Amino acid sequence: MKLNERGLLVVISGPSGVGKGTVRKALFEKRGHNYTFSISMTTRKMREGEVEGKDYYFVSKEYFEEKIKSGSFLEYNYFCGNYYGTPLDKVEEALDSGKELILEIDVNGCQQVKEKMPDAVTIFIVPPTKQALYDRLKGRGTESEYKISERIAKADKEFKLAYMYDYIVVNDEVKNAADRITAIIRAEHAKTKRSLHKYYEMLGDIEK
Amino acid sequence: MKLNERGLLVVISGPSGVGKGTVRKALFEKRGHNYTFSISMTTRKMREGEVEGKDYYFVSKEYFEEKIKSGSFLEYNYFCGNYYGTPLDKVEEALDSGKELILEIDVNGCQQVKEKMPDAVTIFIVPPTKQALYDRLKGRGTESEYKISERIAKADKEFKLAYMYDYIVVNDEVKNAADRITAIIRAEHAKTKRSLHKYYEMLGDIEK
Repeated sequence: MKLNERGLLVVISGPSGVGKGTVRKALFEKRGHNYTFSISMTTRKMREGEVEGKDYYFVSKEYFEEKIKSGSFLEYNYFCGNYYGTPLDKVEEALDSGKELILEIDVNGCQQVKEKMPDAVTIFIVPPTKQALYDRLKGRGTESEYKISERIAKADKEFKLAYMYDYIVVNDEVKNAADRITAIIRAEHAKTKRSLHKYYEMLGDIEK
Repeated sequence: MKLNERGLLVVISGPSGVGKGTVRKALFEKRGHNYTFSISMTTRKMREGEVEGKDYYFVSKEYFEEKIKSGSFLEYNYFCGNYYGTPLDKVEEALDSGKELILEIDVNGCQQVKEKMPDAVTIFIVPPTKQALYDRLKGRGTESEYKISERIAKADKEFKLAYMYDYIVVNDEVKNAADRITAIIRAEHAKTKRSLHKYYEMLGDIEK
């Protein structure tokens, strides 16, 4: 029995190359989970095989910029000439239905989320050692030295942003990391700040 | 891999009759747990079959009062003419060794603990409904009406203290309650405030 019945907004982030996507995938493969994700809105062109409302909501630049002005995004960014954003109304809908909304975003998106939804649970995924991440960034093998050193410089900056998050989860093994996130979600539901209201409601309902 | 290697002090409390002891027992029956408990100090007489340093540390009233004066207790209380207290040095010892110290205390002890150790994780166990607790308090069948109404009055006061705790855990089924506490302990280890220091230490240790 959960006292807090609203879903949680769970932000998963971390330095580039840490394996956020793999951890999120492992989370969605758990049995009996109650997680959902949010479909982003973008101004980039639809690619072959992509489906409107499944891969993205594809919109015009004008439409997107109007939505920015009206504060309709939980977070958005501009990347390689295109906008990408998380529509706030879809997030609220998911949470109201009692699902946990798992949002995998890059480190820059987290601050925007915290401003719009201070109740969000923010998790920073880190490698077991810094070396492990470097090896991974180098190991893809297909990129130039220059590209690799650029990536390492980016990861170095991103590493330092851990303090902004509620939790730090070590991705030593994907299954362990996913289990830790499951425990965090369960614990957050039991937090007094989320459940006290419901608890006091329950206390009102008495016969002796 | 846990970034925070120190054990946690976990306080389990809740209204009389809610089943704190049963939940704690279920916690200690979990496989592969890393929990320990603290042996209390008391001024009451040793009973037959009790062992010094196992059931309690049995001391004189003078000794106990000196320990109070020197601030040597995490929490203590005076009950039916005797003192009972948790020695602070034993607590620190357990936490330094990396064990989670599970402390089951009544609602009055929690505030003392928070003052001495603000880092403690405090959990308030509640029944699924208020009625369930009343039924339980009545159900023992051996007590007088007066005794029962006294107990209910006490539980009613204790119910209201939930707001002082970090977490509220519903004891709908003992196993569920114990699982929730396990999740809370795991999540607390991943909290940024506990692990950031260790994480930054790790970042220092680099070769590119």
